[in-house]
Amino acid sequence: HTLILVNTTTTSQPILVHNPHLDGLKDDVLYHFSLGTETHDLPAMFGDVKFVCVGGSPWRMKSFIEYIASVLGMEDPKAEYPNICAGTDRYAMYKIGPVLSVSHGMGIPSISIMLHELIKLLHHARCTDVTIFRIGTSGGIGLEPGTVVVTKQSVDANFLPKFEQVILGKTVMRNTDLDPGLAQELLECSKELNQFDTQLGNTMCTMDFYEGQARLDGAFCSYTEEDKQEYLHNAQKAGVCNIEMESSVFAAMCKMSGLRAAVVCVTFLDRLKGDQLTSSHDILNNYQQRPQILVGHYIKKHLTHKKDS
Amino acid sequence: HTLILVNTTTTSQPILVHNPHLDGLKDDVLYHFSLGTETHDLPAMFGDVKFVCVGGSPWRMKSFIEYIASVLGMEDPKAEYPNICAGTDRYAMYKIGPVLSVSHGMGIPSISIMLHELIKLLHHARCTDVTIFRIGTSGGIGLEPGTVVVTKQSVDANFLPKFEQVILGKTVMRNTDLDPGLAQELLECSKELNQFDTQLGNTMCTMDFYEGQARLDGAFCSYTEEDKQEYLHNAQKAGVCNIEMESSVFAAMCKMSGLRAAVVCVTFLDRLKGDQLTSSHDILNNYQQRPQILVGHYIKKHLTHKKDS
Repeated sequence: HTLILVNTTTTSQPILVHNPHLDGLKDDVLYHFSLGTETHDLPAMFGDVKFVCVGGSPWRMKSFIEYIASVLGMEDPKAEYPNICAGTDRYAMYKIGPVLSVSHGMGIPSISIMLHELIKLLHHARCTDVTIFRIGTSGGIGLEPGTVVVTKQSVDANFLPKFEQVILGKTVMRNTDLDPGLAQELLECSKELNQFDTQLGNTMCTMDFYEGQARLDGAFCSYTEEDKQEYLHNAQKAGVCNIEMESSVFAAMCKMSGLRAAVVCVTFLDRLKGDQLTSSHDILNNYQQRPQILVGHYIKKHLTHKKDS
Repeated sequence: HTLILVNTTTTSQPILVHNPHLDGLKDDVLYHFSLGTETHDLPAMFGDVKFVCVGGSPWRMKSFIEYIASVLGMEDPKAEYPNICAGTDRYAMYKIGPVLSVSHGMGIPSISIMLHELIKLLHHARCTDVTIFRIGTSGGIGLEPGTVVVTKQSVDANFLPKFEQVILGKTVMRNTDLDPGLAQELLECSKELNQFDTQLGNTMCTMDFYEGQARLDGAFCSYTEEDKQEYLHNAQKAGVCNIEMESSVFAAMCKMSGLRAAVVCVTFLDRLKGDQLTSSHDILNNYQQRPQILVGHYIKKHLTHKKDS
């Protein structure tokens, strides 16, 4: 059977690249995917993609595709889900039906390389009407650990909704808007599921995990517990619900390329109460599944089976 | 047999953490390594480490430890080199004798998380006199592909030798000095090996691979070939020999913690002539081995066998 989108609009939305030089490339090598336009038939491999889900950990993105296979009733107990990027260890990529799952490593630069090549891949494959999710883990501010946060706005370390891209040594500001309708639909999915708490809030995107997030347990720390609490409370006043390291460039690049985008992160701990991740492996593993359950529910709602003729 | 350092000085240099809060931690969970002070005997596991080699790719860091085992005459054809961080897929870590090999992913935030936890690990393990190398790949400027660059200074996108660390929303400047004596010794090692060209030069560290490095082949590009050439020629005039994405924070954090540090990257292409990595897998693989050959030679020179009594 084939899965098709429910309620597709009559006008289809392509994936936009903004680079006049690409047309002149005979071969486009997507180096960090170990794929390319001359070596791979990208429209045949990826032309049917409607949903992309990205996350930091390659293991989690493999487990996501297995989960989606079961949610969509496409699982085959004998099935192996091969890593499409097996020729490299930079990123891992898995696909089932119209759903693509890609890992992006940690931090803005790492996800940025992946997104450049993913956007080009979807463009070369002539995909249309693609929705993309980042599923991740984060530190919460004033939330019960295990709460899922759907990002309203991604903000920087000064709580401003912008991403600074350096181009030829000059800083260019980019907007970090995400799709408000998609965020609202995800909140409704969480109500339908009724398995865990999901909130809409701002997400702070930082350049590192320790000093950049006011942790007291890094190799270096030049501030006090009081400084930390003041900073995190100021973040909370600015509407920040959680902190991670990729959402701003994700929002900026998806907006530029016409991808409907959402950021869905579970909180592993309440940063007002501590810094260390001391919860058991089983508890963290359970929390980690929540964004994928939410996104899986959304995807299932938007696909319907079409009988092959 | 045991390998010990040649010509160790009489005063030993510890690994410095700069964080008064660490002493108060009963357990220090090194979350992204899946290690901790309560769950692992870090002094027993790592106390003998004298050399640490880090690089982006987990595959390359496994291959490095296999290579070092053969260089030091410690290989065992039946030996498996287990991943010490097998409980996580964030980083991979391997060890043989006094040599530790750790992957760091791509970009400043990713290597920064790893270095915070590595510096704490070496501190908890009470290591002394540790030398650290980053072995990596890079784009060259005006160099024959395959040339190895030992970094003199790591510079930012405006060719300045500084790293901007954001702490509680404020930017702090950090020095990116590397050990000049170590760099000189590595150049001498290259002469002794006489297998490939090695140069001393500045390394530009950028926040992304496409727009940040003036590539014309990303998903987005708002500048011309002439703009690109002007930018790269200005970099060349400022002494920049190659471009990568981790050296500045590596230099800054190693300096703060008292680690003797060097950055050794091979150039995969000449960016004045192109942007895409189109060389064959075999050629790139050969180039990739050069930093490890150079660092392996250095390590071998500094270790001597001590007969166990």
